Amino acid sequence: MTDKVKFKRAAVIGVGLIGSSLARALRERGLVDEIVGVDRDADVIARAQKLGVIDSGETDLAKGVKGADLIVVSTPVGAIGAVAKELGEAAEDGALIIDVGSVKGVAVEAAKAMPERVHFVPCHPVAGTEQSGPEAGFASLFRDRWCILTPAPREDEAYKAAVEKAAALWTSVGARPEIMDAGHHDLALAVTSHLPHLIAFTLVGAADDVESVAQGEVVKYSAGGFRDFTRIAASDPIMWRDVFLTNKDAVLEVLGRFSEELAVMQRAIRWGDGKALEDAFTRVRGLRKAIVEAGQESAAPNFGRDKGD
Amino acid sequence: MTDKVKFKRAAVIGVGLIGSSLARALRERGLVDEIVGVDRDADVIARAQKLGVIDSGETDLAKGVKGADLIVVSTPVGAIGAVAKELGEAAEDGALIIDVGSVKGVAVEAAKAMPERVHFVPCHPVAGTEQSGPEAGFASLFRDRWCILTPAPREDEAYKAAVEKAAALWTSVGARPEIMDAGHHDLALAVTSHLPHLIAFTLVGAADDVESVAQGEVVKYSAGGFRDFTRIAASDPIMWRDVFLTNKDAVLEVLGRFSEELAVMQRAIRWGDGKALEDAFTRVRGLRKAIVEAGQESAAPNFGRDKGD
Repeated sequence: MTDKVKFKRAAVIGVGLIGSSLARALRERGLVDEIVGVDRDADVIARAQKLGVIDSGETDLAKGVKGADLIVVSTPVGAIGAVAKELGEAAEDGALIIDVGSVKGVAVEAAKAMPERVHFVPCHPVAGTEQSGPEAGFASLFRDRWCILTPAPREDEAYKAAVEKAAALWTSVGARPEIMDAGHHDLALAVTSHLPHLIAFTLVGAADDVESVAQGEVVKYSAGGFRDFTRIAASDPIMWRDVFLTNKDAVLEVLGRFSEELAVMQRAIRWGDGKALEDAFTRVRGLRKAIVEAGQESAAPNFGRDKGD
Repeated sequence: MTDKVKFKRAAVIGVGLIGSSLARALRERGLVDEIVGVDRDADVIARAQKLGVIDSGETDLAKGVKGADLIVVSTPVGAIGAVAKELGEAAEDGALIIDVGSVKGVAVEAAKAMPERVHFVPCHPVAGTEQSGPEAGFASLFRDRWCILTPAPREDEAYKAAVEKAAALWTSVGARPEIMDAGHHDLALAVTSHLPHLIAFTLVGAADDVESVAQGEVVKYSAGGFRDFTRIAASDPIMWRDVFLTNKDAVLEVLGRFSEELAVMQRAIRWGDGKALEDAFTRVRGLRKAIVEAGQESAAPNFGRDKGD
């Protein structure tokens, strides 16, 4: 998977945080000769072009993907079905199509419905920030992050070659590709990404509900822990709406586990069961160390963010 | 509150993250001539002494506070009642006693039970990291952080002067002192600190409950959001056990609000109500900006923690 891949013309559909980061990385690594940005928002295209992230732009999808041997679908996941359908008509023969969405079941369904002459390999780079838009992207976003590929059930050699090529592309931009079943992906990511986002959105929203605590106080005393949650709660609302709509079953499943665990904690607090609390808190301590050791997190206290740390 | 304060001998009871940070800050700012560390764990004293954080150490509280004109109680909050009782006997006349605990109701009760000859001013610097022990401390921990003082209901001039002195001490180490009612503190901090910690402990624990997702996968894909929660879930279990035991009512109250909000989210997901989700996610986006503008958070994406950001 370390072979250098090379494309003549990449079309990036949706030039936001992820799309523009991949465009920057593809260019930085010399993997493409030309990048066209496709976005329904002409303003986004203009901004991306001004930033030098794309060479040209197009609001019409069919026109934008003309001549492209690589198509990156970096729209919210709710759009994947419609975009794939259009690409089934408009994409060039043999084009490699990848997406970057956080839910893979819908992407595999879309890939299955496409003609064999194009090769859609669903991908999910597990990387991001809380920011949005073409300005937020940067070329090193995928470095040392896992990228999960969930290929469609196709046995033809052309598709298998496309999967290899997609994996090589991710390796080239610094990521670690991995093949997985889409259903398992959607459950695993419900645990490590979707539920954490839902909880963060909820917790930040709930802070408004305590009438006697003013928002100014929430801001002032947020260093007690609350501020951490505001980071992922600042993520793009449309993207996350689509994640929860398209990964409903897995999210509800892991949310159920969380709620059970929370009820156990609530009961321990109500009954003053210090031992149960201490045991539960001690049990979870080690996981962070494992994440730091796996190169997925900073070891610095407070994420190294505070002045003077 | 900007007068320079000065102490001859400070006794720091509990030389962990907060105690050792304050000891370092007091020394760095030249506010004390001598620091004695008091800890029931002789090993902690030896380590703190080796680090140069304290000049001498003592495992016996009464001996340790002898001659001290400043006593810092930086034990877990569950110990505050017993420590205050002992200090009521052992502290020198006129000594200023401050604590640093995250729950203030118990501290004020303890302060009320003390003789008038000593002056216990309950304090809570809203600052910390996920790390523990004397090695984890650093002098700039309190810089630009709020420190909430919840004085006991005493009207004598000596106590009022002690409150002023405590506020000046916090100002001197870079913090922003503020006077507040203990009950209001305990509710506000339940929102901004205690509930976030409880939720983080619970979420990290719940990741273990999904049998078909291996812990190795949780580690690998933690950059999707999960890793953020492991930071505060790595905090000291004893400290947090005591917080939940001593601030039970406020924590249960705000947990109830959170659970209601979560049920609303769950229902929106189950019924595919995209508008409700999008509206809720959009509503919470602005709070982070306010926290960054208030100087309580880094503006850098991903807390600035990732290489190449």
